[in-house]
Amino acid sequence: MIVKSLRSYSRQSRCFGVFAIILLGLGVLGGGVYADPLPSWNEGPTKQAIVQFVRTVTDKSSPNYVPPEQRIATFDNDGTLWCEQPTYFQGFFTFDRVKTLAPKHPEWKEKQPFKAILENDMKALSAADEKGIGEILMTTHAGMTTGEFEGIVREWFATARHPRFNRPYTDLVYQPMLELLGYLRENGFKTYIVSGGGVEFMRPWTEKAYGIPAEQVVGSSIKLKFEMRDGKPVLMRLPEIDFIDDGPGKPVGIQKFIGRRPVAAFGNSDGDHQMLQWTAAGEGLRFMLLVHHTDAEREWAYDRQSPIGRLDKALDEAQSRGWTVVDMKKDWKRVFPFQ
Amino acid sequence: MIVKSLRSYSRQSRCFGVFAIILLGLGVLGGGVYADPLPSWNEGPTKQAIVQFVRTVTDKSSPNYVPPEQRIATFDNDGTLWCEQPTYFQGFFTFDRVKTLAPKHPEWKEKQPFKAILENDMKALSAADEKGIGEILMTTHAGMTTGEFEGIVREWFATARHPRFNRPYTDLVYQPMLELLGYLRENGFKTYIVSGGGVEFMRPWTEKAYGIPAEQVVGSSIKLKFEMRDGKPVLMRLPEIDFIDDGPGKPVGIQKFIGRRPVAAFGNSDGDHQMLQWTAAGEGLRFMLLVHHTDAEREWAYDRQSPIGRLDKALDEAQSRGWTVVDMKKDWKRVFPFQ
Repeated sequence: MIVKSLRSYSRQSRCFGVFAIILLGLGVLGGGVYADPLPSWNEGPTKQAIVQFVRTVTDKSSPNYVPPEQRIATFDNDGTLWCEQPTYFQGFFTFDRVKTLAPKHPEWKEKQPFKAILENDMKALSAADEKGIGEILMTTHAGMTTGEFEGIVREWFATARHPRFNRPYTDLVYQPMLELLGYLRENGFKTYIVSGGGVEFMRPWTEKAYGIPAEQVVGSSIKLKFEMRDGKPVLMRLPEIDFIDDGPGKPVGIQKFIGRRPVAAFGNSDGDHQMLQWTAAGEGLRFMLLVHHTDAEREWAYDRQSPIGRLDKALDEAQSRGWTVVDMKKDWKRVFPFQ
Repeated sequence: MIVKSLRSYSRQSRCFGVFAIILLGLGVLGGGVYADPLPSWNEGPTKQAIVQFVRTVTDKSSPNYVPPEQRIATFDNDGTLWCEQPTYFQGFFTFDRVKTLAPKHPEWKEKQPFKAILENDMKALSAADEKGIGEILMTTHAGMTTGEFEGIVREWFATARHPRFNRPYTDLVYQPMLELLGYLRENGFKTYIVSGGGVEFMRPWTEKAYGIPAEQVVGSSIKLKFEMRDGKPVLMRLPEIDFIDDGPGKPVGIQKFIGRRPVAAFGNSDGDHQMLQWTAAGEGLRFMLLVHHTDAEREWAYDRQSPIGRLDKALDEAQSRGWTVVDMKKDWKRVFPFQ
């Protein structure tokens, strides 16, 4: 039985092998003309708009040609490149840090909003004020060196699992957006993340997950201080906000860290609104895209009323100005790489 | 006479052409082995140290091999890539801005330190306190959009001339350092500027002068604010310091903007000391270099006592730890491209 099964498998493999070679041959012959750079995107106006934009700005004979050094594309992260529900993944990281640190802080059992996190009481947590949230963030994100924090982040990503999908958080990246990042890079674009998330929370894994190196990640940050510790220089993470890369902070972050206006910008919420406005206001052809979460079955469906990733004003402007809006349910053949 | 001269020129040209072809042939045959990537550097231990470092970290069989994505090299600007005497070039820019704006500010005629600038009274200017200097900087660098400031900077560089050399400031870049930048890039390094100078004062011209694009320039900055002006988004430059990229600020700037520790760092003053310490403290082989200004004839000679570009503590550490120190007079065959 086993032998028969193996033989059958071997025959199938051979057939598949020949088939694969033929396909490969066609692919090679077809070259860039017929190969689909965005296989997880359904055919339709959204995909057409992307391809049309890229073809135009890379066409030297077009009046809208953009030289390679100016091909800057900026991507929001949460809700644009990976999920952001039921809360931002950096939120889960923060909750886990509080629980890990709790044995050293017995007072947290009675102190809000730490108590709420330790008791998984999301209702009490949502009642926390800015001061309380700030205290949680600084306790979990500051008071160590940059190297120590990087180790904590790496360790968490290696072990933590998303509550709905029971998978590492870095599995929950969007396959169509990975293809879009690759397609833009193949066409000479430099791809950047411009996210409200903490920059040092993202840098350890963006290269592997998105092909975006650490130096092309712009995010929120706390202050750093250079110090000598036992004769060795370290950078201490201080409990003080340095920069909030969200909303009107996104164009500021782009100017501070990149120093060029993007020709294409990708977001999914009102926190990306000003980044898209800033991009749209540049000269020549620009491309603005919003991911609209419309797929409760494969991912989530939310927009104007959502406390996380609210998409309201930016959606209105996208509709009135003809920016591209992805209908996740309709436009994406596949959501995650693992599906 | 003209005909004869032309004939002679034509004969010379032909001879030169043949000669050039032979040279080119030798060059091509010689390939990378014999071509000197650093022709403006005299042979000696400094040049040897540079070449040895680059060969080692790019040699896959070496235990000190560094993968390309980690090949980050950071360069100070003032005094390392271009001159900084008799004062920082951004100082000259600032004086010129004060003079340009003076007609709209009749009160400056009697108000220090503006008065000192208008009267070219460097002694009175050097007596100005931090508040006065801050006021001058903010008056000349803030209160306009990023686009307007870029225009002002471009205009200044197009017209201003250095007092000693009577040339555009961007002519006063060091030929040996241009070759070093190119040599590192040919070997897979990403080259960055990490300067105490204003980031938006540098970005408009670093690509052309150094081959370093805007997004690879780290510098000091003032705060920016996103605003809508007549329905168009702008970034206003606010009269408030955002970040000082000097001394202990340089490792901070490197971590904020690049997010990776350099494997090679290049400076010339105590303002670069911590950048070199931070670089040296990384694992594996690292390269630290200081440009020592020893050439009063071709450039300037200054170090421990200089108010501009003081090199004192960093020189001591370089000597005790074996960092590479360029003796400009001895190590550089040529200082400027125009010589």
